[in-house]
This record gives sequence, structure tokens and C-alpha cells, in this order.
Amino acid sequence: MRGFDTSEFAARTERAQNKMQASGLSALVLTTEPEVRYFTGYLTRFWESPTRPWFLIVPASGKPIAVIPSIGAALMAETWLDDIRTWAAPDLADDGISLLADTLREVTLDDAKIGLPDGHETHVRMPLADLRRLQQTVGQRDLCGDDGIVRALRMVKSSAEIAKIETACAIAGRAFQRVPEIAKEGVALDAVFREFQMLCLDEGADWVPYLAGGAEQGGYTDVISPASDTLLQQGDVLMLDTGLVWDGYFSDYDRNWSIGSASQQVKSAYSALIEASDSAFEIARPGATAAGLFQAMNSVLSRHDADTGAGRLGHGLGMSLTEWPSLIPTDHTVLEPGMVLTLEPGIAVGGKILVHEENIVITEEEPRFLSPRAGMELPEI
Amino acid sequence: MRGFDTSEFAARTERAQNKMQASGLSALVLTTEPEVRYFTGYLTRFWESPTRPWFLIVPASGKPIAVIPSIGAALMAETWLDDIRTWAAPDLADDGISLLADTLREVTLDDAKIGLPDGHETHVRMPLADLRRLQQTVGQRDLCGDDGIVRALRMVKSSAEIAKIETACAIAGRAFQRVPEIAKEGVALDAVFREFQMLCLDEGADWVPYLAGGAEQGGYTDVISPASDTLLQQGDVLMLDTGLVWDGYFSDYDRNWSIGSASQQVKSAYSALIEASDSAFEIARPGATAAGLFQAMNSVLSRHDADTGAGRLGHGLGMSLTEWPSLIPTDHTVLEPGMVLTLEPGIAVGGKILVHEENIVITEEEPRFLSPRAGMELPEI
Repeated sequence: MRGFDTSEFAARTERAQNKMQASGLSALVLTTEPEVRYFTGYLTRFWESPTRPWFLIVPASGKPIAVIPSIGAALMAETWLDDIRTWAAPDLADDGISLLADTLREVTLDDAKIGLPDGHETHVRMPLADLRRLQQTVGQRDLCGDDGIVRALRMVKSSAEIAKIETACAIAGRAFQRVPEIAKEGVALDAVFREFQMLCLDEGADWVPYLAGGAEQGGYTDVISPASDTLLQQGDVLMLDTGLVWDGYFSDYDRNWSIGSASQQVKSAYSALIEASDSAFEIARPGATAAGLFQAMNSVLSRHDADTGAGRLGHGLGMSLTEWPSLIPTDHTVLEPGMVLTLEPGIAVGGKILVHEENIVITEEEPRFLSPRAGMELPEI
Repeated sequence: MRGFDTSEFAARTERAQNKMQASGLSALVLTTEPEVRYFTGYLTRFWESPTRPWFLIVPASGKPIAVIPSIGAALMAETWLDDIRTWAAPDLADDGISLLADTLREVTLDDAKIGLPDGHETHVRMPLADLRRLQQTVGQRDLCGDDGIVRALRMVKSSAEIAKIETACAIAGRAFQRVPEIAKEGVALDAVFREFQMLCLDEGADWVPYLAGGAEQGGYTDVISPASDTLLQQGDVLMLDTGLVWDGYFSDYDRNWSIGSASQQVKSAYSALIEASDSAFEIARPGATAAGLFQAMNSVLSRHDADTGAGRLGHGLGMSLTEWPSLIPTDHTVLEPGMVLTLEPGIAVGGKILVHEENIVITEEEPRFLSPRAGMELPEI
């Protein structure tokens, strides 16, 4: 099923409002695509345009209020919201700031604390000059942080959200299965990238916001570069890492292939990656921590050269390609049922790196793979 | 040719530094993908991940300095930069802010003004709490606006940039030509969206960040909705509007088709759109203004019902899907050779809307179509 029942948005809003009350916040102001969509279901690729700001206010009670450019009015009217206020953006003199400030004054008291997500992995999507002007325009009201409320909500997915991520993961799995159709010795890496995106679409992706990877002898240099036109050759390890979207939710995992036979060193490194992600999977239950999953993987990887520069060994996943928590030694987030995580161990081998990635969901009991778990052996093409 | 000669980045930096001197700015701090790429050539789809902040400092003289997560070090080292400072992001305690502040203290005096893009169409891509902490950490230095410097630079494209946009436009043109292969009565709109993206890739797009459109009887309701699974039927007007990327530069234009015969009302409205974009094209020369192009189109459209809610009739185009200027009555930006614009007239017809869009470049003499100009008549499928 596409979209969500209205009850889903009502429940999210109620949970936010309960937390707001506990934190002494009279309203939230949200400005980014996933934040606005989380409370409304407002789904459009139009956010690709950086021109117009979009605002959503979550008041202390009642439904959220949209303060948005008129171009979005018709689509926002299809959501569960009742109160949609628009202006003719872009307005070079006042791009929605007065309308936003007026609305905030209407729904909060003079000394209110108004929360904006301000922590890790967030930003405020409006011009800095407008943010400063908003602060001046709302009088004594304090534009403060949101006390991690949006993070706490989004980090634990509903079953309806998990189903969407699982659909996205299944689409990616079918596309990965078909990689031998498009990749072999003598084919350029940028052609593989292009055709892999076509496979993702052909298998049902709505769109493919993210694709990275590499292919070099015995590994790759990094995992974020665009594709070159270098031809695949025997001894390359090809890696494709895609973040594709179905109904607004991402998959994010990779697969590796050896072009021709892999060296024993590469085979051994790949096995260590699988062993590492399995070791995290085994302990990924409620009560374990993000740091604990890191340590589980790192204890396997540190028998090899584990320094890939990636900075972490996995992360949350959902409406964004990457979300909280981070699988790092200092992230002590306690796992809860409904958290969706990537396990993303990396290893250095002969001056190159190899990275493996799976997507899992935390349940009351054992975790569950959302990506179809890769085998122990590096496949050869 | 992919990428740019180093001289391109040196020239951009020198122009910025000349403007910084005139504005009394000792450094720029840049945080978003196009801003960082503009001065470095750093091209990666990894920005899809919102987790890590990335910083680029343009000092008063010398090359820019990158202050970035270690995961980007290898790729940034392939650019023309010499000074690349990294930290192991994500760092929950200090995600690059100390390193950024230290670097700013090193390259500026105590009372320096440090510019961040703060105007229309910009945002600061770092957590709000980190921005506030940065302000406290740099002492007496003033984190102010950039005086529109980045806007002024990016708005006027080099010939190398224009060539990339033209390549992207040509790819889109070939994909649009092939739409009759995938769209006809009885096909679902979401299948058309999926397969059109495949056509864009097949014709050479690196990726397809943006696709919107619609198909309803005699027009569509808006131009930003995702595709439904409604089947195309006789009398629908199908519109596809794509922003595809080649080597980091966008095309952004649309095409319309009638499924079966179009009504006289729709044909007439479509002709008005073409007449409107032509009327703007004819005056799009150095010295004309963005507002002037709006007025030229609006004078045609206002003979019909021109209220589509879009808020403008075109915009700049380049490294982002939409850029300055806006074709609105209040944007008095004077056109210069090298500006790339979309002409995007819209019209209301029978409760629906129609929108047409072309991409042009301003030259010393006549403008030039980068998109293959559509014909006067609405094509039928």
C-alpha cells in the first residue's frame, strides 16, 4: 500500500506533542523534506529545487499547520492537514517569514519555547538571514533546539514504515541479482552505473537518489566517487552501493563481485566482512547499543586492517539514506524494536578497501534481514 | 569533456576573492553541495546522506581549504586543493566545528568578517546548534552574510559550464523524443515515470534527480505531484518535467503530449504557452531584466487565465535544478551573457493547468535555445 492511514500521522503528532510537553516546547518548526513529510505524508520530488522554503508547525495540540509556497497548496491539501497557509513564493522581500511568524504568534504565548531540530544530522532549511529575521520577528519567543524529539520519533519505525523499507530492499535485491547481465570484463564502470540504475527502476524503484561504488584491482579506493569510464578487468572487485526509494523510503546496501577469480587475500577479507556483519546481527536486539554493534564488528575487523576512513560501521535508515544512530564507539543509543539499521563493515586490503552492507530491523526477539543476506563467498562474474 | 581545467577553479576563486575584498570579507564559509563543488570540482552523490557536514573556506587569498569528513579525503585529494583537513565524522561531541573554527582563526584576523551565503535560495548545511557554537568559538569574528557573492558568481556560467548544461539538455531531448515508445492510452502514469527515467539514463544521463509531471483530462492539477497509477486515457494531457544531470549540471525542461486528440481549448492554451516563451526569448539579451522576461510572458498569458500558483515563469539553471534569478515582477536582475534560464509559462484551462518550459542561454547577441525548442502544436500520441 502506498501512503499511510491518517491514524499514522495522528499517532506521530500525538507522540511529538507528548514529548513537547515534557520538554516545555509550545511548537516545533520543521523545514526539511523528511521532517515535513513525517508529520504530513507530503511526498514530492520538488524539494530538489532549493529555491523555496517550506515550513511546518507542530503546535502543542491539534494537527500540524503548513506554511508553504502556493505551488504546493494542491498537493498539501491531499494530506490530513486542515490548516494550510500559502504565499506566492519566491518573494524576494519576504519569503514566508512574516506568515510563519504570524502563525507562530497565533499558536504560542509570548514567552514560548519553539523547537527546531538542531542536533546531529539536521539542518535548518531556510536562508540564514531569514532565520535571523524570524528570531527578531517572534519577539520574546525562544527559537531553541527540539530536544531531540524528531530524532527520537523517526528513529523507531512503525510496521507500515518497515514494510516500505522492506519493499525498497527487495527491489534493490532483484536489481543486484541482475548485475551479471550488465557487468563483465571490458565494460566501462560508468556504463555499469547507468544500467544498474535502469535495473533498479525496471524492478520497481520510484527513483534512485543514490548510487556509488568502485571497481579496481583487489578492491577500491573509496566508496563515494562517481564512476569513471575505466573498463572492468580481471581481478577487479566491483562494488555497487545504492540508495533507492519506494514510496518515500530508502534501501541502502551494497554488493561486491569479483571480475574473474579473486585473490586469496580478497576472498579472506570479504569473508571477514560477512563474519563482521553477522556478529553484529547476532547481538542486535532490544537493549544492545549502537556502540555494541560497532564493537562486535570491530572485534572481527581489527584482526585485519580496519582503517577505511569511513568513520562508522553502519547507521539508521528510513526516509533518509542515512539516519541516526551511528554505529561508532561513542553512540550509546539503546536499540528498540522498530529501528532499521545498516551494518556496514569495511576493511583495508593491499592499499584498497572493501565494504559490505546489509539492512536489518530490530524486533522484540531476533533481528530480521531486510536486505537478502549475502553469502559467505564473494561472487565472481 | 568531464570536469574542468584547474584554471576554471582558479578563476572562480579569484573572482570571489576580488568581491570579498570589495565587501570587506576575510573568508567565505561554504556548506552545501553546489557551493563546495563550485570552488573545488568535488563531485559525489554522497551528499544524499544528511549525516555529515562538509565545510569549504575561501580565504582572502590562495586556494580554498577543505574541512571535511575523512571519508571524503581521497576524493577531495583529486581536486586542485592542497589544504585538506579531515576529522573522523560522525563525531557526536564535535563534528568538525573545532577544526573549522581553528582553521578560520588561522586564516583570518580577530575582527574579521566571515561570509556565509545567507540570501534567497541558500541555507547553511550544518546543525543549528553547531552554527551557534561556531559563532561562539570564533571569538569576535562576525559570521555574516556573503553579500551575494556566491550568487553573483554562480549566476553567470562559463562556456565550459554551458557546454555541460547543453549536453544535459540534449540527453533530455532524446529521451523526450522517445516518450511515444512508453506512453499511450491504457498505460499507468507511474509506469511512464519509471520508464522515462530509464530512457534518460539510456540516452546518457548520469542520474535523474528530478521528475515530475501529470496526466489528466485537458491538463493537470499541479506540476509537483508524484505519479499515480491512473491509466492514461484519451483526452489526457501528459506532461513530464525532468531535471537530469550530466557531469554535475542540470537540464530542466518539460514536454506535453495529448493522448489522442486535444480539444480546441487545450490546443489554444498550448499555443499561448509557446507564444509566451517565444516572446521572452525574443527580448532575452544583455540589459533586459528577469522582470522584463516575466512581463513579456505575462502579457501573452494574461489574455487567458494565468493563475497557476507557480509563483514565477522561469528561473536560473545550472549546478542546481533551480537557481537565481526568478522570472517574477520584482526580480530586477539584469541579464548578462552566460546566464542560463528556464522560460516556464503556465496557464489555467478548464480548472486544470498547462505548463511549458524551455532552457536558454544569454549571449552577447541573440539568446540560444539549449533545449530543442518545442513546436507550436501540441503533439498527439
